[in-house]
Amino acid sequence: MNFNAINILEKFSQFNEQWSPRIIAETNGQLVKLAKIEGEFVWHAHEEEDELFLVVKGNLTLKFRDGEVHLSEGELYVVPKGVEHFPIAHGECWVLLVEPKGTKHTGEVDFEGTVPEEAQPWI
Amino acid sequence: MNFNAINILEKFSQFNEQWSPRIIAETNGQLVKLAKIEGEFVWHAHEEEDELFLVVKGNLTLKFRDGEVHLSEGELYVVPKGVEHFPIAHGECWVLLVEPKGTKHTGEVDFEGTVPEEAQPWI
Repeated sequence: MNFNAINILEKFSQFNEQWSPRIIAETNGQLVKLAKIEGEFVWHAHEEEDELFLVVKGNLTLKFRDGEVHLSEGELYVVPKGVEHFPIAHGECWVLLVEPKGTKHTGEVDFEGTVPEEAQPWI
Repeated sequence: MNFNAINILEKFSQFNEQWSPRIIAETNGQLVKLAKIEGEFVWHAHEEEDELFLVVKGNLTLKFRDGEVHLSEGELYVVPKGVEHFPIAHGECWVLLVEPKGTKHTGEVDFEGTVPEEAQPWI
């Protein structure tokens, strides 16, 4: 057991790569991840997993087939499992994610930006 | 499905009661809760649940039987299941918690400050 606080901004300072999640904590089979994102991602859904987005810096729009939500710093949203979503960041956005181990960040969609979880490093 | 962002500070502005968690979101069977705490709580453990603490405002010390961790704003820590802990807030501290549904916030310890989950309101 370690007694080190996990400082979110310090963790963000350790990487610059976009759309490439880093893992900072695990709780009850859920991973807490950080990602820097900018621009558009890809339409996808996670069939079995809810996905929590918390914006730490910047702005994020989550488009859905029947609506959208806008997140600013200090705002969170849970995308329910099975719901297709399309993240768009206007400028660089720093986001904290909570999702179960094994969740593919592009859902069942395999595209050039897919980073397998085993390639998502702990920092 | 709603398309409303959950603004953490706005949610904190809705209550002043200390040591009385409010629920703001659910994801994969985990509840995201907010609490305002000050002073000492009670030694307790959650036998089956990890508990994530994220300090939104103020400072929090988590004492353990064999060490302690200090959390400032923007810092988080996961207390592993089964580990006794004793939260101490120096001044009022605003904390975001992630824990499974059904977690008792005082663990197996029943004391005057225990708030049963069914009495923890959604806001």
